[in-house]
Amino acid sequence: MMRWHRMHLDGIPVVDLEAAAARPEEVSWFEFWSSRSDYYEGLANDALQNNSTVSCGELLFLACLCIHYAQYLWWHEPSRRQAAQRRKERLYRRAAPLLVSPAELLSVDLDELSIPGFLRIPSAAAEPRSLPCVMLLGGMESTKEESYHFENMLLRRGVATCTFDGPGQGELFEEVGLSADFNRYSSAVLDYLRSRPEINPDAIAVLGRSLGGLYALQAAAMDTRFAACVSWGGCVDMDYFDAETPLTKEGWRYIAKVDTMDEARDFVRTTLDLRPVLSNLTCPTYFLHGALDPTPMSEVDLLRELAVNAPLTVVVEPDGIHCVHNLGPVPRLRMVDWLVVCLVNKW
Amino acid sequence: MMRWHRMHLDGIPVVDLEAAAARPEEVSWFEFWSSRSDYYEGLANDALQNNSTVSCGELLFLACLCIHYAQYLWWHEPSRRQAAQRRKERLYRRAAPLLVSPAELLSVDLDELSIPGFLRIPSAAAEPRSLPCVMLLGGMESTKEESYHFENMLLRRGVATCTFDGPGQGELFEEVGLSADFNRYSSAVLDYLRSRPEINPDAIAVLGRSLGGLYALQAAAMDTRFAACVSWGGCVDMDYFDAETPLTKEGWRYIAKVDTMDEARDFVRTTLDLRPVLSNLTCPTYFLHGALDPTPMSEVDLLRELAVNAPLTVVVEPDGIHCVHNLGPVPRLRMVDWLVVCLVNKW
Repeated sequence: MMRWHRMHLDGIPVVDLEAAAARPEEVSWFEFWSSRSDYYEGLANDALQNNSTVSCGELLFLACLCIHYAQYLWWHEPSRRQAAQRRKERLYRRAAPLLVSPAELLSVDLDELSIPGFLRIPSAAAEPRSLPCVMLLGGMESTKEESYHFENMLLRRGVATCTFDGPGQGELFEEVGLSADFNRYSSAVLDYLRSRPEINPDAIAVLGRSLGGLYALQAAAMDTRFAACVSWGGCVDMDYFDAETPLTKEGWRYIAKVDTMDEARDFVRTTLDLRPVLSNLTCPTYFLHGALDPTPMSEVDLLRELAVNAPLTVVVEPDGIHCVHNLGPVPRLRMVDWLVVCLVNKW
Repeated sequence: MMRWHRMHLDGIPVVDLEAAAARPEEVSWFEFWSSRSDYYEGLANDALQNNSTVSCGELLFLACLCIHYAQYLWWHEPSRRQAAQRRKERLYRRAAPLLVSPAELLSVDLDELSIPGFLRIPSAAAEPRSLPCVMLLGGMESTKEESYHFENMLLRRGVATCTFDGPGQGELFEEVGLSADFNRYSSAVLDYLRSRPEINPDAIAVLGRSLGGLYALQAAAMDTRFAACVSWGGCVDMDYFDAETPLTKEGWRYIAKVDTMDEARDFVRTTLDLRPVLSNLTCPTYFLHGALDPTPMSEVDLLRELAVNAPLTVVVEPDGIHCVHNLGPVPRLRMVDWLVVCLVNKW
């Protein structure tokens, strides 16, 4: 479960990763990270006693990230996993108003559901309807609470950020599992963002990581109002299901809410298939792939073959693992700069 | 030379530390980090071509930090070391106006010298003469160009930051080596900061790391206008010179500008001795010490014994190395919060 580089770049301190690697055998992964979460939450409460609200927010985010990584691949104990999810949500909700820039809690209606999300606005004053915005999509086990540092990169460059939970994710998981219509959720949130007085409705991009990278392509293919799209370690179908690791397959089974792995394979392959819609993709699209990813290079070929109406920027890193997490901060910076060029520099 | 935790917390990406550890035997430490500096400078230039000025600034800072660590303990080739120093200065000067918040280049006159420095002001608008400020002092091989991430922690909390080179440091080294009157330089910079229209002249603290932690105590003991003082891995004398590592001793010899180690020992012990002045220290003072530091615990005892007129907060971390770099971000956060409580929350 030790996805060292990803955890570090998302904000887990190196000392905690070292301690996790060196923990006694009798301390489980889940217990170790729960206890780190307790530790940072305790420090956050101390900071609040001192009126150190910025530190309180940063420490609550750390506590949130630790409990996230406690449960992120903990598919085999659903009740424990779900309790940790609830804790993660509570910690981030406490952190949200204290972050620099604050994260505003959103609720967007769709069907009988409320889609929960967060919006962060860069602190520099801006003209009405002038702010570009990037909608960030999580993947199989990612939710709206984890992208604080990536958001900060965008915010420093004058770009607002929005995260939300879609089908199979975070707060929505219990009501709705993996489904073929993630794009309805992203479009509902896009409607909301376009109604915000700060945001330029024509400068909203979508970026998704891992499975979120498939959702991002789907979102932009099905809704031409997106100005740009980034698929970060994404794919266009799940025909390669059998190449996934056992733990990832367990994750698919879990979010598909089925009992057997055969059902999961069938459901995932049928539900996640962008081949019929990729010709509808027209906005500038950035696709980042690590050649060492179990996701095969044939996914990149398919994108090139089918997304014939979109200006594509395809980056394949020969030494990159899934989502290129092992190559440090530069690939993330490049995605951010590409987005800024699409959304800001052209206006 | 691989001071892993310090380098990482100051901003060196983990992937570069891994690559440094795995570099081929024929690639020297100096060459490895020079080449990383070239790499990031190249990316910075690319970013500028795209009008990605924020990325350009962040990448130039990274290039600056890499060339810093190339030369920081490279005492045995002075001309190479000094050329790298000049490069470090140039890189940071290019980065400075592009940082969020920008670093403004200062020049403060003292005797026949110009003290070079940088001032960063938090972005949120403030009333005239309302901003608290922290003056950050480097140590034996640290200069005004390295504390970007620590500064950012203060800036996010509404505190301005100032760095400069004193005797034996950076741009001043060739004109003036290690000397007993560092406090004259910090007081000259303090005069300047108190004249700035943004800054609250009564809310300026001084913080120094390693040898800078001795300078911070000296600065505050000799100038009661400082509102607070942090000594981060500092000391009050150098009687323990012989306990230092061979590489550190070479550094002492270098900045003392003497030929032999015997001369260095004598000069350093005589020049750096706060025992006669510590009773003049009256402002709130925070002293952070790692019990595994070659700097002995007797330095902590001496501070307690002699700084009898200052409210002292002494933190000894039993598992901490020099400057407690191995304990992650929390000790840094605690120093920052302590400063904010001293400078902000009380006003």
